[in-house]
Amino acid sequence: MSRNWQEAVKEVIDESRVLTDISDLYSYSFDASFGTFVPEAVIQVKAREEVVSVVKIANEYKVPVYPRGQATSLSGGSLPVHGGMVLDVTLWTDTLEVYHDDLVVVASPGVLTADINQAAEEHGLFYPPDPSSAHVSTIAGNLAENSGGPRGLKYGVTKDYVIGLEVVTPEGKVMNTGGRTIKNVTGYDLTKLIVGSEGTLGIITKVTLKLLPKPQATKTMMAVFDDIAEAGAAISQTLTSGILPSKMELMDQNCAISVENFQPFGLPTDAEAIILIELDGHPDVLEKEIQSVDEIVRGVGARYTVLAETNKEAANLWKARKMVSPAIAAVKPTKVSEDATVPRSKIPEMIHRLNDIKEKYEIELVVFGHAGDGNLHPNIMCDKRDQEEMMRVEEAVGEIFQAAIELGGTLSGEHGIGTLKAPFMEDEVGELGIEMLKKIKDSWDPNNIMNPGKIFAEPGQKLVLRDE
Amino acid sequence: MSRNWQEAVKEVIDESRVLTDISDLYSYSFDASFGTFVPEAVIQVKAREEVVSVVKIANEYKVPVYPRGQATSLSGGSLPVHGGMVLDVTLWTDTLEVYHDDLVVVASPGVLTADINQAAEEHGLFYPPDPSSAHVSTIAGNLAENSGGPRGLKYGVTKDYVIGLEVVTPEGKVMNTGGRTIKNVTGYDLTKLIVGSEGTLGIITKVTLKLLPKPQATKTMMAVFDDIAEAGAAISQTLTSGILPSKMELMDQNCAISVENFQPFGLPTDAEAIILIELDGHPDVLEKEIQSVDEIVRGVGARYTVLAETNKEAANLWKARKMVSPAIAAVKPTKVSEDATVPRSKIPEMIHRLNDIKEKYEIELVVFGHAGDGNLHPNIMCDKRDQEEMMRVEEAVGEIFQAAIELGGTLSGEHGIGTLKAPFMEDEVGELGIEMLKKIKDSWDPNNIMNPGKIFAEPGQKLVLRDE
Repeated sequence: MSRNWQEAVKEVIDESRVLTDISDLYSYSFDASFGTFVPEAVIQVKAREEVVSVVKIANEYKVPVYPRGQATSLSGGSLPVHGGMVLDVTLWTDTLEVYHDDLVVVASPGVLTADINQAAEEHGLFYPPDPSSAHVSTIAGNLAENSGGPRGLKYGVTKDYVIGLEVVTPEGKVMNTGGRTIKNVTGYDLTKLIVGSEGTLGIITKVTLKLLPKPQATKTMMAVFDDIAEAGAAISQTLTSGILPSKMELMDQNCAISVENFQPFGLPTDAEAIILIELDGHPDVLEKEIQSVDEIVRGVGARYTVLAETNKEAANLWKARKMVSPAIAAVKPTKVSEDATVPRSKIPEMIHRLNDIKEKYEIELVVFGHAGDGNLHPNIMCDKRDQEEMMRVEEAVGEIFQAAIELGGTLSGEHGIGTLKAPFMEDEVGELGIEMLKKIKDSWDPNNIMNPGKIFAEPGQKLVLRDE
Repeated sequence: MSRNWQEAVKEVIDESRVLTDISDLYSYSFDASFGTFVPEAVIQVKAREEVVSVVKIANEYKVPVYPRGQATSLSGGSLPVHGGMVLDVTLWTDTLEVYHDDLVVVASPGVLTADINQAAEEHGLFYPPDPSSAHVSTIAGNLAENSGGPRGLKYGVTKDYVIGLEVVTPEGKVMNTGGRTIKNVTGYDLTKLIVGSEGTLGIITKVTLKLLPKPQATKTMMAVFDDIAEAGAAISQTLTSGILPSKMELMDQNCAISVENFQPFGLPTDAEAIILIELDGHPDVLEKEIQSVDEIVRGVGARYTVLAETNKEAANLWKARKMVSPAIAAVKPTKVSEDATVPRSKIPEMIHRLNDIKEKYEIELVVFGHAGDGNLHPNIMCDKRDQEEMMRVEEAVGEIFQAAIELGGTLSGEHGIGTLKAPFMEDEVGELGIEMLKKIKDSWDPNNIMNPGKIFAEPGQKLVLRDE
């Protein structure tokens, strides 16, 4: 037995890929959420056997293992909160194979999500999940957090496309789940258990995803509402008209103002809500369907609508939507991005509650997001150096979660629980829910080495957005 | 403490719904698969609190609990193989509510799947999973086995539509999983773990399902092939052309012959394969898409195609497909229905292997099924009173499973493992796979009272289709 786990790791992994310099460790100490936690070593794994060796060492020495992709997590999924080792999969991109006839793609964990989609498109296929980080995030990270995106409305989320996994268990064994078939009811669905488990049940070393035929065309429109309740009605009535849009994105007034201040797109800044709608499918039918949607949204009271006549016009509308994040990031240095999700019918009420919370805590809050599936993104603009402001923000975030749960919704639609939302888990799933989750975790990972500190709150843990 | 568990049950459940007469018990001793197992009591539960009370008694007395819907299981999911108590949910139909604005429906476990679809259609919505038993099977049974159906190709299976559950755990506690939102990444996905777990992890007492806008129209065509490999190519090429049919059903030659002998529909009996294709969506685009599909299937060598001009013609083609089961049931008294599933590209090879198995064991075998998603239904026609024949059938079934696994497929696409396929589980998921499944099972159900004898094989268990 080696003197310590770091030495043991260096015996099985090329030393050039075992980082222990303090400057390297610092660059792995944060993600896109909050907090700084310095790991003891970073291991840049590139093969299944390497993961097996390293996890066996971790399990033997009882060292925390923190799997990490591009660390775009908004909930702290990849933060090494208890030190130990980070397993960086970003160099592991050797496999990216489309099996055209089976409509599946097989990829290494470090492959970027956008690269998977590009490979699929070369075969006339597509991979629907479209988190806004797709161009920089790894597929394994997307799986860990079960990423969503605007297309979730029509096409579902990451989990709906994962049909097979190769996973290294917390005890360092290689397990294959699912396979290459769309239908599979052989035992419990370990594939869907592992997707979204945020790296707490094993390390994903290979993924098999199902693909769909790529839609032939898309069509975009914008609808402008003076009353947010009418925007909610427009969403419901469209969705029950027999038309299923590929995207239905909402921006509130504060959001439109921020974008227009940042870069003018011609968004109305005096309307209570703007909805961007995209339809996809056969070009002939899109023309008719977009007219039907236009009638519906005008019928419930839209002030006006804009139908993109060209791809360029459509792209411009979507660019305005994409500018929301940079626009609000420019307002103040810190952005707290939430993803509280409610049943679709509760969207107007949720937005009213968010406005109440904004006023109560005197915070700067904008609301945008995937309204078609109830997945809102309330974003708070603040300054994390201002301790007093951040305490108000912390309380406001707690109330946002409470409001979502009270309206029959959930803490998180697509960002995951990570460290940030762990203190609120019990409010949603109850004591029994936590107990049943923990039973699974404990049975698979008795030494609690896999991404410890995530999903399950430590005793007394509270939301902290300040550096302490 | 009561003298025995039967007495304890009668203290909490109205005696009229606790059946212990031997004639009653016999009617609960079988399902649509093989074997006869008489339970010690049947309890017709109608409320969550009843299930809580009964499960607590079962856990205290360590008595097996066998949840049961309409017992249409083809894998033995509802068989009370170790006696104990059957929990019959068929009387429990009080809740069936469509929440139109949220696009969800909430139902009691005993509601028939077809009734859910009818309720949804009254709101312009639909519930896509369409197992052929939908008119007689309960939604809880569909969830337990994660039922599929022809529309799985485009719309996925039962699991893809379950977003929330109320479940009584093996220790008699009420747990809520998921909710009413489409997106939810709060902790491990217990909803999708429980769906397809065949009643081994708890009793489902309420289900929340997501609905979709109902497609406006459908269009059907039949394509006839002299070479099964061409039929496989037709499926692949259609699916990569940008068109996603709602159904792609295959019938082999033996199948067509059986149907025509049973009731003439004008199916060609000299062709190696027939594919029935249904498209759904906007009526204008269907007309164009069906022409595109027609060109594709002719391009790969279809002998001829038939495009249904009217709904009546379409219904007639689908009726021929629906007649397959009764037609082959009329050939011989016993029908062994399998659902081995392979990656789409392996369909022609799987069909050739099935024909080899048919010849090797001199059995009567037809192949039909959901070819678009690789989910074939090899059916063997036999006579279970003929012990010698049934032994050949048992060996043939084992080889069918082996062939599916060798081709990268699975034992079961939509029927579940139950008792029948339990002996083959390890061949597919490996020793480690079984171990990881068992860890979950043991952690939730330490006394192994929930549907014991399913999924996990008993030591030395073999496939037995004969009454022993």
